[in-house]
Order: sequence, then structure tokens, then C-alpha cells
Amino acid sequence: MAATEKETVSLLITGAWVLTQNGEREILSPGGVALKGEEIVAVGPPGELQKRYTPARVLDYPQGLIIPGLINAHTHAAMALFRGLADDLPLEEWLCSHIFPAERHLNGDFVYWGTKLAVAEMLLSGTTTFCDMYLWSGQVAQAAAETGIRAVVGEVLYDFPSPNYGPPAAGLRYSEELFRAWEDHPRVQVAIQPHAVYTCSPELLQQCGELASRLHTRLIIHLSETAREVADCEAKYGATPVGHLQRLGLLSPRLVADHGVILKEADLELLAASGAGVAHCPESNMKLASGIAPVVDLLAKGVPVGLGTDGCASNNNLDLLQEMDTAAKLQKVHRLEPTALPAPEALELATRGSARVLGLEKEVGALTPGRKGDLVVIDLDQPHLTPIYDPYSHLVYAATGADVQTVLVHGQVVVQDRRLLTFDLEETLARARELARSLHK
Amino acid sequence: MAATEKETVSLLITGAWVLTQNGEREILSPGGVALKGEEIVAVGPPGELQKRYTPARVLDYPQGLIIPGLINAHTHAAMALFRGLADDLPLEEWLCSHIFPAERHLNGDFVYWGTKLAVAEMLLSGTTTFCDMYLWSGQVAQAAAETGIRAVVGEVLYDFPSPNYGPPAAGLRYSEELFRAWEDHPRVQVAIQPHAVYTCSPELLQQCGELASRLHTRLIIHLSETAREVADCEAKYGATPVGHLQRLGLLSPRLVADHGVILKEADLELLAASGAGVAHCPESNMKLASGIAPVVDLLAKGVPVGLGTDGCASNNNLDLLQEMDTAAKLQKVHRLEPTALPAPEALELATRGSARVLGLEKEVGALTPGRKGDLVVIDLDQPHLTPIYDPYSHLVYAATGADVQTVLVHGQVVVQDRRLLTFDLEETLARARELARSLHK
Repeated sequence: MAATEKETVSLLITGAWVLTQNGEREILSPGGVALKGEEIVAVGPPGELQKRYTPARVLDYPQGLIIPGLINAHTHAAMALFRGLADDLPLEEWLCSHIFPAERHLNGDFVYWGTKLAVAEMLLSGTTTFCDMYLWSGQVAQAAAETGIRAVVGEVLYDFPSPNYGPPAAGLRYSEELFRAWEDHPRVQVAIQPHAVYTCSPELLQQCGELASRLHTRLIIHLSETAREVADCEAKYGATPVGHLQRLGLLSPRLVADHGVILKEADLELLAASGAGVAHCPESNMKLASGIAPVVDLLAKGVPVGLGTDGCASNNNLDLLQEMDTAAKLQKVHRLEPTALPAPEALELATRGSARVLGLEKEVGALTPGRKGDLVVIDLDQPHLTPIYDPYSHLVYAATGADVQTVLVHGQVVVQDRRLLTFDLEETLARARELARSLHK
Repeated sequence: MAATEKETVSLLITGAWVLTQNGEREILSPGGVALKGEEIVAVGPPGELQKRYTPARVLDYPQGLIIPGLINAHTHAAMALFRGLADDLPLEEWLCSHIFPAERHLNGDFVYWGTKLAVAEMLLSGTTTFCDMYLWSGQVAQAAAETGIRAVVGEVLYDFPSPNYGPPAAGLRYSEELFRAWEDHPRVQVAIQPHAVYTCSPELLQQCGELASRLHTRLIIHLSETAREVADCEAKYGATPVGHLQRLGLLSPRLVADHGVILKEADLELLAASGAGVAHCPESNMKLASGIAPVVDLLAKGVPVGLGTDGCASNNNLDLLQEMDTAAKLQKVHRLEPTALPAPEALELATRGSARVLGLEKEVGALTPGRKGDLVVIDLDQPHLTPIYDPYSHLVYAATGADVQTVLVHGQVVVQDRRLLTFDLEETLARARELARSLHK
């Protein structure tokens, strides 16, 4: 084939291994990904790709492990500014004596810089998409758009006044306006996010459901996180939180249940029948002593499960590589089955699983032609990743976010050789320190 | 005070914070440590130390968090070469179909290079002492001595022939000779290490106990790791593994029980009454689905508890910063108490706790005058560690071994700004890759 017949692509990235996470979980070694603009056009052996394409740019990582970008299915990014403010406390005391008072000092500036701080951590640890629930979500969207990350954002809605949008009724309006403002953005989407069944009336929940349905977007809620939430819901409404949402007509493929820790058999059946997804946050559930989500049972019933870190006041980091490790080990010890949630399934949670939960399965979560160019290179040239027999094992059980070398989102190189390219890290750290000082006063 | 009156010290190291882990868990901010040769001579505010001492060398970390070197109370270092060889399998299949066959290819060269590979990982992630149980432990001692790390090593002893020392009877002789060969070394000690109650006859266990007693060294054994071990021991000897050792007269402050997962109330009482210590390995216990050790109960009864990673075929890394995080979170979710094992206690496990279990409490585990200069600097100038409210929280819940910047062992700078100074990392990685290839054939 003459050189002139070769198709031009914008970028060819090659490495020692590619975990495609396609339907067959195909592994290439070595392997490469060819991109045209924001889109993946081909995945294959480097030699084949070099024959077919003339790349405008080449990135070669002879000791790199290439994986799909990781997807954080549930977080509160700006809480990066609260990390370590209060730990090792009962949930009520943690929320009511520390987090809520700190959040009284919130404003848009705080959320904007807190989100940028979190995005720096996420990109540098291989997360290319995050789903965020917080106040001043317009600032979250802005920070996501500017930093090059992919995001699903939403304003947290509840029955009491918000320091952002004001009276409860204004929350739905704020959410819809936010949705309209971002609906054409290639990387930022807006979802409807009522806080929980214990902070939202059935009326508010139904209004949220109607709005999400009308806008064709996700309805995202903390659900069945603690035994107390479930007991209170049963006492008040005569149903578990899942049963309560079912009665309200809110269980659907559009629903994302954050946490899903305390689930009865009937809840599992309801979730499975509805097509709703669960965002599993094992480290937060452990740290707040909420319990252990029945992930293996959910997956066995066909419920889509994604992986999230929760906010980093209850984790305390946003590292999905560590979260996969914890998820896999926690299911094993919980079930006393060493075969539970093996490494490839843990990676599935943080890639295709999260993508499916968030309704992004056609865009991201796997390295296949037609999907967006969201990918991560792990640097295997390190003592704790040498030698290598099984890339899934190293990725889930031995690596951390600090082993991430290079990151692409939407075809753009956002981290290269551990340098953040899309925004000023030093400025962000300086602003974070200033805001923390103002909070401490 | 005239400059001439100042005392000369070899090194002054200063940082934004020092967690001393002394009896009062004193925190200095900023703080510094002055060293004379291998010994700490003073810990205090940098200004005071600068007034009192003329240092031959100064290391200043304006964004550094200085902590005592971490102590890995139980590992099998050379298994670094088996990392990822087999995962997500039942314990019996993992051991019998994968690990034991791989270990048939073992030789001294393999153990020497495997240990160096593990030491590279340990030093770069803040571990300054490790307690090792393996074959060819003479090579482990050699690797430890050459690389500058502190170690307690021991030959694994059992009722069947060893590819290293040959017939069972030769194991005790090998151990004693090894002890004699290293008894004057400043950093390397030798302990007596029978494998477990299910691989060692009561006679062998008693011989081990007598030898450890005669040599005034630790007696270290895998104990009560799995429910099956306990059930089998009860069936065979009519006692739990702890009860079995008690009957054999082997429970004493000299005993280190590795794992201690399946412990009955009577076992806790026996351990507490004897002064024996436990090496807790939560990530291995999770991954192999062994169970959750009753750490909070052990501590409440006054049993010394240290922290270990176990070998990295069952973890799969040697990162004690991550292990502290897991230990703290696992106790919380196990007990459904968010206040269980708070961050300062998790750090205690990996410092003073491990030191006490290994009989090194006068030498290491805290930053106090008279102890050895084993310390670690964590680099706080990173998005996931900014801003900082509570150094314990960041250390346990947000940091990983990759945040370690500089490490001293025995007063020697062994890692500086993430460069390993004491041996050739590239050579070690190259040898590890070669050995892995030979194993795969």
C-alpha cells in the first residue's frame, strides 16, 4: 500500500498493553489507539495501525499500560477543600457539627476552586469523567468545562432553602436553566439530583422525576446509604427507600442510586426490574461505617453498577485505582469468597459500569472505534509493577493513581508525563490554601 | 550563646510538620529532627534546633510531613517476583496450584533479587523496617544489609524438606547459624520462624520455641489466619491454634502471631495474658477472604498489634500507607462504628505497634532522642494533600507510598526526592524481569 493511501489521524498512542474493555475484554500486547479529533477510530496492534494511518502526533509508551479513562460515578468534588476537616466521627456528628457548618461558608468561588482542586487530583489519578452532586453546580460545570474533564453535574435539591438558589421551589428552575445552559456542551451534562428520601418530600421527588424525564437526563439520589435511613423511611412511608421511589414511579433506567448499601432482597428485585443503576462507593461506606453494599448480588441480577469515591471528606481521596482495589477486596472478605469480584470485574465497575449507570455507555468506558478518546496510560516501569504477569492484577491490586503517566479526555492530552496541561496547578493549590484559611477563621 | 558553644550534629532535617509518635503523640509544626550518626539526638521546633546545633548537613522540606519510618511487621519480600501470578482464587488452589509450584523454582539468586525488588518498593513507599519469613533467608539478610533497610529475617521451618536447607532437622541448625552470622549487625536481626500449626509438628514447634528462647530472639508464626486452620487444629489437637501454642508453652512476649484473624474470646485472653503480639495484615486477609481480625478488641485488651502487608502475591503491594487506610476503614465497617481505629491509632499500628511486636521498641517506631534515625518525609505539595487541616488524616486516609519524598534509615539518607540512593534500581528491575521470564518457562 502506498504511503499516500494512508488515512491521516490526529494521534496514535501505543503501549506495552491495551485493555480495551470491549465486549470481549480484548487485551492487546503491544497495542495502540488511533484518534481523529475527539474520537477513537481504531484500536489494534501498533504495526497494523502504523500501516493504516499517518498520525499527526505519536505518543509511544514502551512500558505503558493503556486503559479506558476511569469514571467516578459519584462524588462531591468541591469537598476536596474539606478533606481532613473532621474524621473518625459518627455520621450525624460529622455532618451536623462539621460538614454542614463548613458548608454554610460556601459560595460560588469556593465551589469553583474546590472543583478545580478535585479535577487536578482526578486527572492526575486517571479519572476522565466524574458525576458530581453539589451546590453552585453552575460553578462545577464551569470548572469541568475549563479543565478539560468530562462531567455529569447537578444541583443538590432538598426541602430547605439553599445558600445558592434560595427557596426550595427555585431549585428545579435552577436545575432546568443549568441544563439548558450546558445542553450543547460536548463534555458537560446536567442531571437532576434530589439529595435523599430523608431530605426531600415525596412531592419534590416526583417533581424531580418529571423534570429529569422531560429533559431526558439522569435522576440521581443518595439511596439506602445507612440502616438509619432505611429504618426512618420505613417508619415514615411504610417502605424501604427503594420501595418508596418505586411507589412514586421513580424507578427507571434513568435513576442512579448512590451507595445502595442497605438493600433487601425485594429492593434488589425492584432495582433489577426497573433498569436503575447503582453507584458503589466502598471506601466512603467503610469510613462512615455504613456497611457493605451487595455488589456481587446486584451484578448477578443484572443491575448496572458503577464505582464512585464519594466526596473526599469521607474517603479521603478521589483515586479510583485504589477504590477498585478496595471494592474487589471488600466483596471477597464480606462474602468469604476469594473469587468474588475478580480484578477484571473491578475494572469493569470503574469503566463500562459507571458509563452505563450514567448513560454514557455509547461515548466512554471502553476503547472501541466510535467512542470518545478518553484514555489513561499507567507507567509500569516501577518496582511495585515489575515484573508483570497479568495487567488486570497490577492495575487493580498493585497500582495507585500516582502511577498514571498520561491522560486523554475527548481526544485532548490533559496530563502528559504527570504534568497537568490544561490549567495552572500552582494557582489552584494557592487558592485552595487561601480558602482553607478563610474557612478556619 | 556563641556559635562555638553549639554542638555539632551530622544532620538536621526540618519540615512543616513532625508527628513524633512519642508517648504524648506530640505534633510539631514546623518541626525538626537532629541526628548524630545513626541516632536521633533531638526533636523540636526548627529554630530551637538551629540555636543548639551546628549540622554538617541540612535537609529542609517546607511542605514536608515528617513521620517515624514505617515498620512492616509481616511479609515475604521475595514474593514480589510472584505478584500477579495468580489472583482471585480459593486459598488452597492459590497455594497448591500456583504459589508452591512457583516456589519449586526458587533458589538463593531468586530470593536475593526478589528481596531487593521488594526493598526498592518498601523504601520508596516509606517502610524502613520489615519482618520477613521466607526460604533462603540468608539471602534476605544479605539483601537487607546491602540496601540499607532494617530487617528481622527468618527461615521458614516446617515438617517437610526445604529446597534451601534440606531435611527438617537441618532447619533449626540453619536458623541458629544464620542468627550467629548476623548477631552483631546494626540493622539485621534473625528470628525463629516456624510456618504454622498445620505444617509444624508440636515437637518442631517446641524446638523452635527453645531455640528462640536460648537466642533471646522472636518466635514468629502464622497463627489463626483462616477458619479452616482453626477447625483443623481443634480437630487434631483439641485446641485452637492459640490454645495449642499455650499448651506447648510457646505463648510469651517473644511470640509474634502473624494474622490472628479467627480469634475466640479465650484466645484474646490468652494472648493478652502472655504478652504475645499480633501482626495484622488486613489487605491480605481481605484478598484471600480469610476474615477480619478483631484489632480493636486486641488493642482494648492490651495486646501489642503491628501492621504488615503479607507477601505481595496476596495483597498485592507493600505500601504501608495504604495498609493503614485499609486497617482503619475495615475496623469501622466491621464494627459499624465510624469512631473505631481513628487515624492516629492506625499510624500507631505501623510505627510503635510494629516496633513493640518485633521487640524493637527501644530502637525505632517514634522520633525521640536515643532512638535510631529511621524517618520518612511525605510531600504535602500535591492536590490530594492540599489544603491540610489534620496531618494524621492526610497521612492515613489520603496519602499513599507514592507521596514519600525522602527516607532515612539508621541515620542514612536512603531515598532523596524519590531517588533510591543505596542500590541500582535499574539493575534490580532488569534482573526481576529476567527471573520472571525464566519462571514463566
